[in-house]
Amino acid sequence: MRNQKRMRDYGVKIGRLEPGFYNAITDIEGVTVGHATLSNKETQTGVTAILPHQGNIFKEKLIASSHVINGFGKTMGTIQMEELGTLETPIVLTNTLSIGTAAEAMIEYMLEKNPEIGRTTGTVNPVIGECNDMILNDIRAGSVEKKHILEALENASREFKEGTVGAGTGMLCYSLKGGIGSASRIIEMEHGRYTIGVLVLTNFGILSDLKINGKAVGEELKDVILQTTEEKDKGSVMVIIGTDLPLSERQLNRILKRSVTGLSRTGSIITTGSGEVAIGFSTATKIPHKKPSSCLSFPTIHEDDIDLAFRAVGEATEEAVLNSLITAHQVTGRDGNQRPALKDLIEKHKISLI
Amino acid sequence: MRNQKRMRDYGVKIGRLEPGFYNAITDIEGVTVGHATLSNKETQTGVTAILPHQGNIFKEKLIASSHVINGFGKTMGTIQMEELGTLETPIVLTNTLSIGTAAEAMIEYMLEKNPEIGRTTGTVNPVIGECNDMILNDIRAGSVEKKHILEALENASREFKEGTVGAGTGMLCYSLKGGIGSASRIIEMEHGRYTIGVLVLTNFGILSDLKINGKAVGEELKDVILQTTEEKDKGSVMVIIGTDLPLSERQLNRILKRSVTGLSRTGSIITTGSGEVAIGFSTATKIPHKKPSSCLSFPTIHEDDIDLAFRAVGEATEEAVLNSLITAHQVTGRDGNQRPALKDLIEKHKISLI
Amino acid sequence: MRNQKRMRDYGVKIGRLEPGFYNAITDIEGVTVGHATLSNKETQTGVTAILPHQGNIFKEKLIASSHVINGFGKTMGTIQMEELGTLETPIVLTNTLSIGTAAEAMIEYMLEKNPEIGRTTGTVNPVIGECNDMILNDIRAGSVEKKHILEALENASREFKEGTVGAGTGMLCYSLKGGIGSASRIIEMEHGRYTIGVLVLTNFGILSDLKINGKAVGEELKDVILQTTEEKDKGSVMVIIGTDLPLSERQLNRILKRSVTGLSRTGSIITTGSGEVAIGFSTATKIPHKKPSSCLSFPTIHEDDIDLAFRAVGEATEEAVLNSLITAHQVTGRDGNQRPALKDLIEKHKISLI
Amino acid sequence: MRNQKRMRDYGVKIGRLEPGFYNAITDIEGVTVGHATLSNKETQTGVTAILPHQGNIFKEKLIASSHVINGFGKTMGTIQMEELGTLETPIVLTNTLSIGTAAEAMIEYMLEKNPEIGRTTGTVNPVIGECNDMILNDIRAGSVEKKHILEALENASREFKEGTVGAGTGMLCYSLKGGIGSASRIIEMEHGRYTIGVLVLTNFGILSDLKINGKAVGEELKDVILQTTEEKDKGSVMVIIGTDLPLSERQLNRILKRSVTGLSRTGSIITTGSGEVAIGFSTATKIPHKKPSSCLSFPTIHEDDIDLAFRAVGEATEEAVLNSLITAHQVTGRDGNQRPALKDLIEKHKISLI
Repeated sequence: MRNQKRMRDYGVKIGRLEPGFYNAITDIEGVTVGHATLSNKETQTGVTAILPHQGNIFKEKLIASSHVINGFGKTMGTIQMEELGTLETPIVLTNTLSIGTAAEAMIEYMLEKNPEIGRTTGTVNPVIGECNDMILNDIRAGSVEKKHILEALENASREFKEGTVGAGTGMLCYSLKGGIGSASRIIEMEHGRYTIGVLVLTNFGILSDLKINGKAVGEELKDVILQTTEEKDKGSVMVIIGTDLPLSERQLNRILKRSVTGLSRTGSIITTGSGEVAIGFSTATKIPHKKPSSCLSFPTIHEDDIDLAFRAVGEATEEAVLNSLITAHQVTGRDGNQRPALKDLIEKHKISLI
Repeated sequence: MRNQKRMRDYGVKIGRLEPGFYNAITDIEGVTVGHATLSNKETQTGVTAILPHQGNIFKEKLIASSHVINGFGKTMGTIQMEELGTLETPIVLTNTLSIGTAAEAMIEYMLEKNPEIGRTTGTVNPVIGECNDMILNDIRAGSVEKKHILEALENASREFKEGTVGAGTGMLCYSLKGGIGSASRIIEMEHGRYTIGVLVLTNFGILSDLKINGKAVGEELKDVILQTTEEKDKGSVMVIIGTDLPLSERQLNRILKRSVTGLSRTGSIITTGSGEVAIGFSTATKIPHKKPSSCLSFPTIHEDDIDLAFRAVGEATEEAVLNSLITAHQVTGRDGNQRPALKDLIEKHKISLI
Repeated sequence: MRNQKRMRDYGVKIGRLEPGFYNAITDIEGVTVGHATLSNKETQTGVTAILPHQGNIFKEKLIASSHVINGFGKTMGTIQMEELGTLETPIVLTNTLSIGTAAEAMIEYMLEKNPEIGRTTGTVNPVIGECNDMILNDIRAGSVEKKHILEALENASREFKEGTVGAGTGMLCYSLKGGIGSASRIIEMEHGRYTIGVLVLTNFGILSDLKINGKAVGEELKDVILQTTEEKDKGSVMVIIGTDLPLSERQLNRILKRSVTGLSRTGSIITTGSGEVAIGFSTATKIPHKKPSSCLSFPTIHEDDIDLAFRAVGEATEEAVLNSLITAHQVTGRDGNQRPALKDLIEKHKISLI
Repeated sequence: MRNQKRMRDYGVKIGRLEPGFYNAITDIEGVTVGHATLSNKETQTGVTAILPHQGNIFKEKLIASSHVINGFGKTMGTIQMEELGTLETPIVLTNTLSIGTAAEAMIEYMLEKNPEIGRTTGTVNPVIGECNDMILNDIRAGSVEKKHILEALENASREFKEGTVGAGTGMLCYSLKGGIGSASRIIEMEHGRYTIGVLVLTNFGILSDLKINGKAVGEELKDVILQTTEEKDKGSVMVIIGTDLPLSERQLNRILKRSVTGLSRTGSIITTGSGEVAIGFSTATKIPHKKPSSCLSFPTIHEDDIDLAFRAVGEATEEAVLNSLITAHQVTGRDGNQRPALKDLIEKHKISLI
């Protein structure tokens, strides 16, 4: 983030709400993000981990929800999240064919931190998201190993890189290089000041559809770079949403669903080809794994407060997608396949984003 | 209830938990039930209303949820209940082709009590359930009028009749006369003593499938009454579940889903023919229509407490179905169609239920 | 349509696919649309009916699906549509508090056409959609009567009016006058040429959010008309989607979900305040009510063909919303409440839409 | 099966439909089942694989669906199954903490058989189900390796063992030894003779709830074996359903939902503790991975035919659960934990099952 030029640095301002300090998901107190990047010729892939808080998340779970935008994907862990409304592990993103390895690594990581799992308490529900990076990455090689998941988990910090990094190393977006992007919004309510943060792993869209804040930049670019055939859109994106707003899992789910407004405004038509899933959590309340003798008590906003959160998530998702594009650098990967970087193209062809 | 002989009076004891004082949904403090019965030759139909609390439910909503067991039905109001997790009107049950009339009446009833609806606040979401009583009732005649819905709402009390009454007047169950039934269970937790109450409108099943507490009473009856052809099961039941247990809408939904265990144990195979819908509410918290300046706070049980509620809802649903059968009296209706009463058959043929 | 100036007449061309002959939902062979308009001082409301085909739809059902975008609404009939995947009545749209009346009228209409309902076959599932027109219309007065529903059903034709008409008479959109809009797209596949048509009833959005083909027309307008406070968005829209594409109900549902991309591109953030529901049908196959002795056979597209339909529904929904705005005329209704027409404002303030 | 004494051999006959030749899921033409069993002191676990047909299932997919009965589980692959309505891999069952390993193995297995995955076509969706065997098995040890998944896949045949075998090696059911069970039912329709087969992995229930064909065998057993405290039910079961009935994915889903009636009749109250998921497929139609130039065509039954399938799946599920109990042998595993076999107990205590 710090040393990367992002959309706001190009004068593109999405929406009307203010971003947080980092303009990232890590504006939520306690959230950190880590990457493991594998970039070497045919291998262009990696892992990104999101830690929702810095304590023991198995013992202190968070209210969570997921929303399937397009289910042609292999995301793991959503069944339990929907049934119980909680998240009990970090969230790991990687390439589609590495989900098994990621689940294995996450299980080992959780077992080590929680010796009672499988002994005096039940099991654990790993949450793994994915996109398919087969164009730039030799995905059949299975390069992601368990150690890379641990590396991403251990590297996590409030400042993190965007673009061609971690799980985003080999991803494409609007026929350009995509990857990891993030943004956040501050929302002021009568009872407090809250933040909604979004991190995306982008891997969808064809160039001619790309809109930047309403401007048809994709069509403009398509003309100048003389691209004659457009590849088939494989339509995949992971949207991770964190907030410190006190919410029920139902309210959180309503917010997750609105991430589609942001995706759509960048030009997405949500093609069939791959998975689009939103996963969200609220850090406002920690739910103890161990049952206390009394009832729990949950603060939540009144439903009439929720529109501001709907606006925030749409804006932050839109900006996060655009940040994934503008921060990415060009990659040449498997079989010499290439995808250009937006920042290089607009500089070379002198295209204005505003 | 008081003057009707119910399953327990025949020695049939379902499950292991204790029922409440009324052994009915009205064991939940504040819940009342009212009927309007139309029984006259070809007209065998009616209305049953469940009032979840005695205040203004539009201004003080309850946490609520619904679960579609079989969606071949016309129940109204569940979309909003799922989105917002709340109930803001009484629940009305009637015959399938009277749902429009019932909705109209409910809207007028709510408008009268809440002059701000459609002026300074939005609209209101009527919740109407139905089963199809066309065998015994001339359903095409549209005999239910708006006044009957109001009558049921105004008649509501803690003690109410079961069997051939209200919306149950023309309903069938296991080829016998069905209708309204109810039961309840007490659940003791570390933090309190709670009740789960169930009211059913039964209209499903064929005789040979009927099981009473595991006993194949249906097959026994089928032999003695020499019924040669079984009618096609139209598989419809409404299950209304009330509780004072502090629950999130997600937890309540999990409980509603378990009502199927009780239905199944009476012999149901959940046929395609008509709607089976469970609707539930918790009276533990009232949610103000008007937004306060601070956050709301909801007490809820820890998930590890919920199994007792799962057991309770299964037992109460099973017993409520059986109560609808044993309290019903024989009816001759449209075109001379008849359905016998279980209580008459077992007396005549000296069949033991235990 | 014919005599109304629509978005394309202002030079606004949404997307890249071609519209059909009418650029409306009635480009689908057999589909007709009718209105009943009630416009008189405090009464600004009405009914719009969509007939999916011209035969007996109860006897020859269509594959259908629904998708709840925002469930704070009272749409009826979706439970059965989801369970059985079919539509067996026309679709009627009206104001929120008239859904009971509309259901009653639809039931009577269907009973008359199908004497076997409630006699030798089961019941019928009326599909009714709604938006809340309380700002311009005295919605508490209950002005819509059963005869108006019948009027709309009987008036239906391939050419129909948009804007301030039928169910759209009292609706608002982006703080302007909204109402009925429509558009269509042609999609060419290897195995045929198909059409996707959309009809919307718009009642959502605040002025500053309005985008026309990416252009921030709302903000521009807000400046010139010196509107100081924006009303609270009540976020309601009905999206009716018809097609002749051979689809399974699952595929149709995937298409319905993509209507959100079009809504979002006009500026919607999908606020909490009211219902947003998409309902769709395919005319490619008629499903007999009466069971034949053999299996049915359904033609459906291969999933790899579906992206074109996704693009089409997004484009047509976006254009339909814009058509509802540009065709609407200004209305003064209840308590003198007014909403201006987009066409008047852009003419007066010389604002270009392109 | 052949050499194991099953419920019917004890005179217990569930329901009224006839079973197929094997009375197992493998009565569906083309379906085979294989196991890998790890049974050695602390290690009591394994893998069970179900192959839905003997061709290349990635190239010729089957219509499929899933239904979450209780989502406190980690089953993988259901998101895509719901979105696309197809199954493209075998189904693998194992212990909860081995799902990552199983996914990895399945991905490698599919990559080997399909060199175009990740090159000229997209990725693959492994379907993995699980139950938690931590009482008898040292689940933290991670004993299941990739080779065991391959072993189960390669061992698959029409005849297979039930009880303490494969994924069922360490599972419990009604406080007794559970595991793998199967059953089937023949259904005759006007247009053909079809089979519905069920395979269960049972791991739920407490002894006192066990009912065998309505008989309260659990309570009887509880008295004689003087068990004083009942363990907490962890409520987990996987239900795999195969059929050759021509069905849409929607119809198949309706059938899956009815498996709950069978579970309930054995005494299940569907406790919160672990996942209960039904996964089903129809072999009636094969869907080509590669898009043909014409539309596809699907035979499906008329909805009025479906009740027979509902009855069949309930009966077969009930009998499959009971078969898992009666075929299992006693196991002593982790920390000397023991679970007795039903067959031993009824013999020792001379308890009749009928």
